[in-house]
Amino acid sequence: MGAGSWGTTFAKVVADAGNTVTMWARRADVAASINDAHTNPEYLGDIRLPDAIRATADDVAALAEADMVVLAVPSQTLRDNLTAWAPHLPDNSTLVSLMKGIELGTTKRMSEVICEVGKVELDRVVIVTGPNLAPEIAQEQPTASVVACVDEQRARVVQNATTTGYFRPYTNTDVIGCELGGAVKNVIALAYGMATGLGLGDNTKATLITRGLAETARLGVRLGADPMTFSGLAGLGDLVATCTSPLSRNHTFGVQVGRGKTLAEAQAITKQTAEGVKSCLSIRDLAGRNGVEMPIAEQVERVCHEGLSVSEAIVSLMARQTKPE
Amino acid sequence: MGAGSWGTTFAKVVADAGNTVTMWARRADVAASINDAHTNPEYLGDIRLPDAIRATADDVAALAEADMVVLAVPSQTLRDNLTAWAPHLPDNSTLVSLMKGIELGTTKRMSEVICEVGKVELDRVVIVTGPNLAPEIAQEQPTASVVACVDEQRARVVQNATTTGYFRPYTNTDVIGCELGGAVKNVIALAYGMATGLGLGDNTKATLITRGLAETARLGVRLGADPMTFSGLAGLGDLVATCTSPLSRNHTFGVQVGRGKTLAEAQAITKQTAEGVKSCLSIRDLAGRNGVEMPIAEQVERVCHEGLSVSEAIVSLMARQTKPE
Repeated sequence: MGAGSWGTTFAKVVADAGNTVTMWARRADVAASINDAHTNPEYLGDIRLPDAIRATADDVAALAEADMVVLAVPSQTLRDNLTAWAPHLPDNSTLVSLMKGIELGTTKRMSEVICEVGKVELDRVVIVTGPNLAPEIAQEQPTASVVACVDEQRARVVQNATTTGYFRPYTNTDVIGCELGGAVKNVIALAYGMATGLGLGDNTKATLITRGLAETARLGVRLGADPMTFSGLAGLGDLVATCTSPLSRNHTFGVQVGRGKTLAEAQAITKQTAEGVKSCLSIRDLAGRNGVEMPIAEQVERVCHEGLSVSEAIVSLMARQTKPE
Repeated sequence: MGAGSWGTTFAKVVADAGNTVTMWARRADVAASINDAHTNPEYLGDIRLPDAIRATADDVAALAEADMVVLAVPSQTLRDNLTAWAPHLPDNSTLVSLMKGIELGTTKRMSEVICEVGKVELDRVVIVTGPNLAPEIAQEQPTASVVACVDEQRARVVQNATTTGYFRPYTNTDVIGCELGGAVKNVIALAYGMATGLGLGDNTKATLITRGLAETARLGVRLGADPMTFSGLAGLGDLVATCTSPLSRNHTFGVQVGRGKTLAEAQAITKQTAEGVKSCLSIRDLAGRNGVEMPIAEQVERVCHEGLSVSEAIVSLMARQTKPE
């Protein structure tokens, strides 16, 4: 459900693993291109999609008889979309979330929104996350991934349904940790991009990754996550890929802001809003409600939404770090 | 003791923190350049060194009356050098190690060699490590670092003696973890460079960092390190800086090998042997003696010393990872 870059790429993975896929695209022209030309040019250029993928703009038809419903809409639209879809979810279908965000206002993780709005138990929800830049997977570059579910057996079913020669998912049962790793990394990647745009060195940027992962883990542990999750593919792996890759929108957006562009100018250059620009609000909110200090997320939020300059933010971060590690 | 890139840069840090420094350089011409022109052109270009640094090629004179003896020679030469210096170490002087390696043959960490050859107790030995690419520090880019000693009070003395506006050291008491993080990262950075040279994507490379840190932590915990050390600046921070920076010799060397160059050709291009080429032998040896699996270090060692091709090594790594994370 969703025909963006990651949704389309994941459909290809599932089809390449031997399954039949029906994609829902919001726009009929995108569905037509997938059906007729087997491409999604806006997001994946001329990459040819497998014949086993069909697309439709009719959401109810797309949901009918699905064993696995893959949710790949923008995080902040999940509630509205799923409200419409909930009555049509097949009984006992697995709900797979590709989304990495925290809902604004409620500070709920995507799995929490899915359970609440979809009226399903958590053991039917599977999170896919990890160092998974969609353009590389679409090109069949070797990639490791994480499928997380409180029901390990269901995670294994999704693992089997998504294993291909180029895509290797590992199972995990820590849904909280996997979702937080995926959501917070977008904000840290914005900070990393800003530092790059400012011209800071690799020592400073490696410190940002290290301290960023530490504050992510601090929040996660407070919310019941397993601290080891943050050292794995869903934590460190995803964070490093997102921070260091020019393919990451959050990184690229941050670089523009670091060079002195306004948010609007950066958005015009990168053509999309980076997820982290919204997420930093909900993550700071979530951290505040739980009494967890997240200095990097706080500075990113102040740059994106309170007019702080990037250089002031970095100075404030460096000056702050005077405690033992 | 040692006037290479990191040794000279660290002398600048110590001098900038308000101390008087006497450097020992093996070559008299290097000592003369430091005294007369306040530069070390071979390693630090035209960066001007503080007046508080004096240099000499007389090792016994350099050691006389030192409170802090900073050891910055190539890892594999430490034993021979320190054997000559041991009778001249001032009583109760602090021995600071900048070296990141494991001794070939004995598989000893640098602090172990220092205690054995220098005939000192471990509480006199301080390790400096972290995401510390010397050229950036020499340019006074903001950098965080780690000073580790089993005696926290002594670590704090070194912290105070090395804190400047651009260099911020944090104390740690896990000497084993800090030394292993520093030694193994050179080997993982070789693998990362090889993957880059082969043209692999950021998903794969982020996975290499994640799995590389996991195998480092596995060895460390087996040897008595605190697993949390590997999530900090001395583990993750140093690893990310070394893997991603073009300033890292191990990275650059690995890139050349990944592009199909032989070790000799890569050495001719980068002008120096990467530390990881030697370390991979002693680390694999150490892992073997302790029954710890380190698949990435093993493949690097096979590429560097047994003629395995880089693409075979990567295929073997990817095929191998079929366990739960």
